[in-house]
Amino acid sequence: MSKKVVTLGEVMLRLSTPDFKRFVQTDTFDITYGGGEANVAGALCNYGLEGTFVTKVPDNPIGQSAINHLRRYGVDTQYIAKGGKRLGIYFLETGASMRASQVVYDRADAAISEAEISEFDFDKIFDGAVWFHTTGITPALSDKAAALTEAALKAAKAKGVTTSIDLNYRKKLWSKEKAKEVMTRLCQYVDVCIGNEEDAETTLGFHSKETDVTKGELNLEGYKDVFKQMKEKFGFKYIASTLRESYSASDNGWSALVYDGNEFYHSKKYDVRIVDRVGGGDSFASGLIYGLIQEMGLKDATEFAVAASALKHTFPGDMNHATLAEVKVLMGGDASGRVQR
Amino acid sequence: MSKKVVTLGEVMLRLSTPDFKRFVQTDTFDITYGGGEANVAGALCNYGLEGTFVTKVPDNPIGQSAINHLRRYGVDTQYIAKGGKRLGIYFLETGASMRASQVVYDRADAAISEAEISEFDFDKIFDGAVWFHTTGITPALSDKAAALTEAALKAAKAKGVTTSIDLNYRKKLWSKEKAKEVMTRLCQYVDVCIGNEEDAETTLGFHSKETDVTKGELNLEGYKDVFKQMKEKFGFKYIASTLRESYSASDNGWSALVYDGNEFYHSKKYDVRIVDRVGGGDSFASGLIYGLIQEMGLKDATEFAVAASALKHTFPGDMNHATLAEVKVLMGGDASGRVQR
Amino acid sequence: MSKKVVTLGEVMLRLSTPDFKRFVQTDTFDITYGGGEANVAGALCNYGLEGTFVTKVPDNPIGQSAINHLRRYGVDTQYIAKGGKRLGIYFLETGASMRASQVVYDRADAAISEAEISEFDFDKIFDGAVWFHTTGITPALSDKAAALTEAALKAAKAKGVTTSIDLNYRKKLWSKEKAKEVMTRLCQYVDVCIGNEEDAETTLGFHSKETDVTKGELNLEGYKDVFKQMKEKFGFKYIASTLRESYSASDNGWSALVYDGNEFYHSKKYDVRIVDRVGGGDSFASGLIYGLIQEMGLKDATEFAVAASALKHTFPGDMNHATLAEVKVLMGGDASGRVQR
Amino acid sequence: MSKKVVTLGEVMLRLSTPDFKRFVQTDTFDITYGGGEANVAGALCNYGLEGTFVTKVPDNPIGQSAINHLRRYGVDTQYIAKGGKRLGIYFLETGASMRASQVVYDRADAAISEAEISEFDFDKIFDGAVWFHTTGITPALSDKAAALTEAALKAAKAKGVTTSIDLNYRKKLWSKEKAKEVMTRLCQYVDVCIGNEEDAETTLGFHSKETDVTKGELNLEGYKDVFKQMKEKFGFKYIASTLRESYSASDNGWSALVYDGNEFYHSKKYDVRIVDRVGGGDSFASGLIYGLIQEMGLKDATEFAVAASALKHTFPGDMNHATLAEVKVLMGGDASGRVQR
Amino acid sequence: MSKKVVTLGEVMLRLSTPDFKRFVQTDTFDITYGGGEANVAGALCNYGLEGTFVTKVPDNPIGQSAINHLRRYGVDTQYIAKGGKRLGIYFLETGASMRASQVVYDRADAAISEAEISEFDFDKIFDGAVWFHTTGITPALSDKAAALTEAALKAAKAKGVTTSIDLNYRKKLWSKEKAKEVMTRLCQYVDVCIGNEEDAETTLGFHSKETDVTKGELNLEGYKDVFKQMKEKFGFKYIASTLRESYSASDNGWSALVYDGNEFYHSKKYDVRIVDRVGGGDSFASGLIYGLIQEMGLKDATEFAVAASALKHTFPGDMNHATLAEVKVLMGGDASGRVQR
Amino acid sequence: MSKKVVTLGEVMLRLSTPDFKRFVQTDTFDITYGGGEANVAGALCNYGLEGTFVTKVPDNPIGQSAINHLRRYGVDTQYIAKGGKRLGIYFLETGASMRASQVVYDRADAAISEAEISEFDFDKIFDGAVWFHTTGITPALSDKAAALTEAALKAAKAKGVTTSIDLNYRKKLWSKEKAKEVMTRLCQYVDVCIGNEEDAETTLGFHSKETDVTKGELNLEGYKDVFKQMKEKFGFKYIASTLRESYSASDNGWSALVYDGNEFYHSKKYDVRIVDRVGGGDSFASGLIYGLIQEMGLKDATEFAVAASALKHTFPGDMNHATLAEVKVLMGGDASGRVQR
Repeated sequence: MSKKVVTLGEVMLRLSTPDFKRFVQTDTFDITYGGGEANVAGALCNYGLEGTFVTKVPDNPIGQSAINHLRRYGVDTQYIAKGGKRLGIYFLETGASMRASQVVYDRADAAISEAEISEFDFDKIFDGAVWFHTTGITPALSDKAAALTEAALKAAKAKGVTTSIDLNYRKKLWSKEKAKEVMTRLCQYVDVCIGNEEDAETTLGFHSKETDVTKGELNLEGYKDVFKQMKEKFGFKYIASTLRESYSASDNGWSALVYDGNEFYHSKKYDVRIVDRVGGGDSFASGLIYGLIQEMGLKDATEFAVAASALKHTFPGDMNHATLAEVKVLMGGDASGRVQR
Repeated sequence: MSKKVVTLGEVMLRLSTPDFKRFVQTDTFDITYGGGEANVAGALCNYGLEGTFVTKVPDNPIGQSAINHLRRYGVDTQYIAKGGKRLGIYFLETGASMRASQVVYDRADAAISEAEISEFDFDKIFDGAVWFHTTGITPALSDKAAALTEAALKAAKAKGVTTSIDLNYRKKLWSKEKAKEVMTRLCQYVDVCIGNEEDAETTLGFHSKETDVTKGELNLEGYKDVFKQMKEKFGFKYIASTLRESYSASDNGWSALVYDGNEFYHSKKYDVRIVDRVGGGDSFASGLIYGLIQEMGLKDATEFAVAASALKHTFPGDMNHATLAEVKVLMGGDASGRVQR
Repeated sequence: MSKKVVTLGEVMLRLSTPDFKRFVQTDTFDITYGGGEANVAGALCNYGLEGTFVTKVPDNPIGQSAINHLRRYGVDTQYIAKGGKRLGIYFLETGASMRASQVVYDRADAAISEAEISEFDFDKIFDGAVWFHTTGITPALSDKAAALTEAALKAAKAKGVTTSIDLNYRKKLWSKEKAKEVMTRLCQYVDVCIGNEEDAETTLGFHSKETDVTKGELNLEGYKDVFKQMKEKFGFKYIASTLRESYSASDNGWSALVYDGNEFYHSKKYDVRIVDRVGGGDSFASGLIYGLIQEMGLKDATEFAVAASALKHTFPGDMNHATLAEVKVLMGGDASGRVQR
Repeated sequence: MSKKVVTLGEVMLRLSTPDFKRFVQTDTFDITYGGGEANVAGALCNYGLEGTFVTKVPDNPIGQSAINHLRRYGVDTQYIAKGGKRLGIYFLETGASMRASQVVYDRADAAISEAEISEFDFDKIFDGAVWFHTTGITPALSDKAAALTEAALKAAKAKGVTTSIDLNYRKKLWSKEKAKEVMTRLCQYVDVCIGNEEDAETTLGFHSKETDVTKGELNLEGYKDVFKQMKEKFGFKYIASTLRESYSASDNGWSALVYDGNEFYHSKKYDVRIVDRVGGGDSFASGLIYGLIQEMGLKDATEFAVAASALKHTFPGDMNHATLAEVKVLMGGDASGRVQR
Repeated sequence: MSKKVVTLGEVMLRLSTPDFKRFVQTDTFDITYGGGEANVAGALCNYGLEGTFVTKVPDNPIGQSAINHLRRYGVDTQYIAKGGKRLGIYFLETGASMRASQVVYDRADAAISEAEISEFDFDKIFDGAVWFHTTGITPALSDKAAALTEAALKAAKAKGVTTSIDLNYRKKLWSKEKAKEVMTRLCQYVDVCIGNEEDAETTLGFHSKETDVTKGELNLEGYKDVFKQMKEKFGFKYIASTLRESYSASDNGWSALVYDGNEFYHSKKYDVRIVDRVGGGDSFASGLIYGLIQEMGLKDATEFAVAASALKHTFPGDMNHATLAEVKVLMGGDASGRVQR
Repeated sequence: MSKKVVTLGEVMLRLSTPDFKRFVQTDTFDITYGGGEANVAGALCNYGLEGTFVTKVPDNPIGQSAINHLRRYGVDTQYIAKGGKRLGIYFLETGASMRASQVVYDRADAAISEAEISEFDFDKIFDGAVWFHTTGITPALSDKAAALTEAALKAAKAKGVTTSIDLNYRKKLWSKEKAKEVMTRLCQYVDVCIGNEEDAETTLGFHSKETDVTKGELNLEGYKDVFKQMKEKFGFKYIASTLRESYSASDNGWSALVYDGNEFYHSKKYDVRIVDRVGGGDSFASGLIYGLIQEMGLKDATEFAVAASALKHTFPGDMNHATLAEVKVLMGGDASGRVQR
């Protein structure tokens, strides 16, 4: 009845300042745990699927706390390996108005970056699974992590599991050249490719007409051009990108463009007042995966994904806590935010 | 010198999540106590009148805490009966942007719903009072509470006290049919009838042209048509309704329409950035009651009420803490929010 | 290498309610310490200059806490005198939407208002300094404080230090007549004069065409007219004013007008979503001082100051914590608030 | 490898005041979720067993939050039924010194009290289980809950699962007479019977010499006498009782007495400085169950249970978060509380 | 039915650091409002009497917040005058172990210190009152306040109201000489005189054998000697003193000695683990007043007062929130602190 | 006038759970920054000396926050190098009663462990200094850090600066063998050697009779024997050790033993109720350094150090915030913890 989706990646301890404080001002941190693939697993559990998250965490109370956080939201954590040096950390300072949010990463030597393929029984992990999802962050962590990602993708394909990847280029983790080399190799095992605004070029090397992402203007034609190139090269079944228009740190426009090799579909656009935008892309990915697994059709799946991820911006933390019902109400056109009694 | 206003209803323990957290995310609740009629009594005390709130609370520390909360804001609590099973509770999760606020009620078997008429000495309670106010929530709690409401209204009328009711239909408490039957009986004792957007139809059965409240568009003609029918059937002295335009959970348009049997008056409209919209309707009711008691005339009373309730949206908690001076400044046209030093 | 800027004034304990609570609602206060000149010293340290703040605080743990707060942000506190009765306090309730922020001052008998000139060794204090800044608040505290301010200005000028003043009229501290008399005397030692919207008239007696500051409309011509009069009378090298357009307590327009005796320059205008607007004027002053010390030229210095102070509105507390890099990015045109990873 | 233990009972929302505040003083509640059997399941998960908790919670976000809380600590929640009116609540005010902690229950009409036997597939629930535990609170909730408890005990016995019960008499839930009648019926299915100081008499009607529990003096002979009677009547395999000596709300003595039908064993006594004593008895029960499942022998199992539950008093919340390693260190004699680096 | 007790004095804003933080460490203050006489009025309300507190607070939101705080706990605030400069403040840092709590007073120019006798209608205030209580702090605030205290005492006596005073010498407010002069004048109107360990000597000039209060040893004979002298000189009906033995900031011994002119009675002694010891003396005074009003007899009244004030040490804030029932249980001998369910 | 003391070592971000929560329970961390040598520098500033702390922190907001924390408490941070990978972190869970505090270190690759000697101008750093202090933790961080420590010690000795070291063996950082080799080399530059209970043996290889530190019994003779051996081998001027008796995580005995080559001195012992014991040893070291610099003589310096460090246990955070006055009062025999008004 419930459908199993496996995701693989890093879960980090997130330490964020409360009440718009700067790092230098704060005397407390709010704690949550997140990471692209963990966020996807959590959101899918929230929709009723069986989200299984695969990673490695240190065998100490901080690693255990990460596991507990994921379990709280229903994620199956039984395949998480334990050991290694540390849990990666990221520090977050939430911006407002023209002040950008700041992220300070402290993720070097995270347990997952040192994990061996042999620590994971992919045959068992993918048993009964319908989907596998990962992101371009995981292979960027280390060569070992790249090899692990490739092994997982291969194993998934071998089991007939649909695969998706969110490109998610992180310039602090690797060079464009390295990214291009590794991601090109990985993409041969990918069915559904999701990018955000800057990834296709940096990660896969596809060039489009300039989109100045700081201006909040979209260059749809550029995207379409790149999508066509991506389809041609990798034969992806679907290609999707969220389209964020950053009016300010407080208000964004949010929509998505998808492509099935034949047609492009540009979703409805939402203007969101932001509570916490971290994890916005992950909530789109999980929404799209949900929609496709539920066989909504690409357009409805996209509208589901965009509505879901618009809602994500209103929750603190990395994970999307929107309910199925809420997503469907918004997707159905009611953005009035009237009290639900 | 000070004027006594009596209100009758339920006061609940309100438990709300901080910082836009979902229920599933929070490890603390912010506490306040509220309820339509308690909120009205509190706001009137704030304006210098003598607000007397009549209810029943359990004889335990939670009931006492509700009393203490009301006393803190000046409400006369001497007629509150003690006993019964429990204090009603409601859980609140404040929404943002397209995410609606969620309310979970846990109010069954509240002490007030089991209260006997004999527990209240209405003769003494209404002694010296100039106004009595209640809402459609109180009779919806139970048959006993409906009987108590009717007894109070009758006692007020017998003492020459002006009466008002806020229709406030709550679909989880009773059916439309039951509501219509009871409220029709109660309205014969009512001088001033206040509704919000959906109540007149559900509670009293008056049909107007469709107003799709989720779209944020007002259907003033529909309201006027309904008001005329209400006037005709019940002979209310004044009929009033707030007009909420829900752009999102963060931003609303806010105005009011009033009718004195001759003329309609549509107030100035405010666009409010919302801190906490719960109690918005109650703050309008208390503002209107204040204006009418102070003999401002209907238009000014309405502008006072709309300005007061626009300000309510900027305070956390159910109760309106706007001062007389602040309401008058806003009513006078200064919505600039400049620092008051 | 680092450049020394001296400021003189009061530092107060600031007690603010959290989460938009009213004073009557709160059971905790957030603590910070601030004051016009202290805020300027702190912001300049943040930009890499050597901010030295001169004041007097009581010789008790509250006074020490104020010193510690300033030291935390790099301010040189070695010339702060200790003794006197108390630290001034101000209570702050942050407004939202049409609700104005409220400030309650409790600053009478603050240590600085009773300080003797002899408690400060201005010869040493100004040794190596390039700039001295104070505000119209300091001389308003008491006759002694006015004498101290004058002594400091004289000493600065004698040492060849550039001087600036922010007029900052506070009606609760002194009358217009007294202000005019004292400030006229002080302004003879001033090179750069900064005002906000209402100060030039109240403090120095210059009349312009009406600017109704509550309407959010700017009267640039009126400002220009006044600036010319100010230039003529006092021979200031630069005159500057921030231009705040109060759309509401949540949203303001923010720009500045400067005058060098020849030309007027009206900066870019920012629409800011406000986290905390206290200290906005001080952050403009510190930005302008920084720009002029760094010899950016008046226009760039002004754009730097306006960008810096626009950012200030997004930080809690009185002090500006924007980094040089952030100010320059905003000044360069990127107000998109995109996450900095 | 991991051993499955099933527990059945109520999980409640616990709302506690922070920092020793009285109910009338607090403006926030700390949230946790607990209940005797849920606490046992959670502690066993913590020790590496497979704790499965069976209950019914309302199908709303409050019920979901309870489930999430349990999942966070590893409890298997798959058999929890959803529906019914509400989640039971208890309010807690933690005492200190001679001030007792106060508990206000608001648990009437909790979903579990209305649950039908047919909502639980005990055949599946007990599949693979080695132990079943419940308490005297569950049958006290309602006749339906008593029938459900009996059905569960019967099903467990039929499957060859060891059973235990903690008598836990709650005078606000039922009369002694009713308790005696029901518990006598249930005890025929019980292998291990755990009481606390007052339960054996009130619940099962066994009389001993007076133990004035308010004096903090133990009456071991009285306990022994009662244990013998219990053994004789019900043939329990093991009978155990914690022995709490309440020196004050801050400091307690803590030990246990066990009986295997032949010998009595009085454990080591710990003097505990209390952080939160709620759940102390449950942590003893879970420790004893763990020890017996691990075949430690009764004495070691008892010492394990007493050490575990002594540690429980140092954690906030109902559940025991002591690790296996910590319990074993304490059991081994090191109560020095030295920092573990 | 309810008995009216009037108290007169100062209510201050109390700002305390949380979690044992030093002033220099904290970024928040916990807020409460207190003062000797306000604390007495509040505790008496808590016991069911009618506590009426007379003071003057500034006509601003801080003054209003003090009133609201008192109302919350049932105090009749209708005779509180409004106006003057400011509300007195005191800063509190709670100590632990050998670290003493620190109090920093900032109470100069408090509104009550400038209040005129004519602002209070004592005829009305004492109408129906059975008791009047004040402390030696109030006359120490200023000459005006001393005159006000004298006027109140005279008015009370003229109305036949029993009077009590708590000597409470504060060395920062006045000299021993001034204290002696004023207090000697006031004591002629006093029926019941309460001191703490150091007051009788400093305030009234009675010398006894040395009691080194820092050693935690009591010098009962010295007390008795002083009490006899006090009785002889002033003819007090009862003289009482709490006896605090400061083992450390965390643990104190607590008892009392009373004298009726014939016999001395030394109460039971409690060893208290301290949560907040501020207001300990006031809670004794209110307990004694309650006991005497209820005609318990001096010994029982004393035991009531000591038990009540022992419990006070377990509540945060200045006011005693112990219930009548709790005091009676403790007075009856149960200090076990067992959970009350 | 003020005397300069230089310390060298690591400053870490400390993340601790509030309110005795376990790591797995908490959703917030309290933040402070600490490390043995930083704590010493801070405490010395608190006593009026000039504490200069030398380290390296990453050039990011987390590194800056560490600097700001130190500056807040007066530490001279001008010689702190910037760069490297990250700031070391340690996670702290404060224990109670028999539950030990837990520390999880995450300090690998901290900036200071990779610092080059050339990043520090020791000639300038030691200019005017009277004392240099470091600990055995710093050389344990890495070979580079050991070399840096040696360079600093040599430079200090070359400048005639008195040197001290706190042995502080950390088993997670290096082996006993490595520690012995490096520390033996470093100790040739040391004048004053401070150990705690386990260090002399593990770090320097001196064997004494068994002291079972978990039993809370002291083996003074064993210490004396070891001190003599240390004196003989290294010729230290003074050798000192704190003597902690761990009754529980809540209560400890605390004294010290010192040796000047001729005589042993065992200080007064304090029984401390613990708020936060981290940094206890550092506060002893800073107290001893202060006493010796102030030429108190060894016995008084030791009593000062023990009193100071006993007080440290009552402050949250790593640093000692006891004032000179407080230490002297305690040293003088008043441990009564009476309120200081």
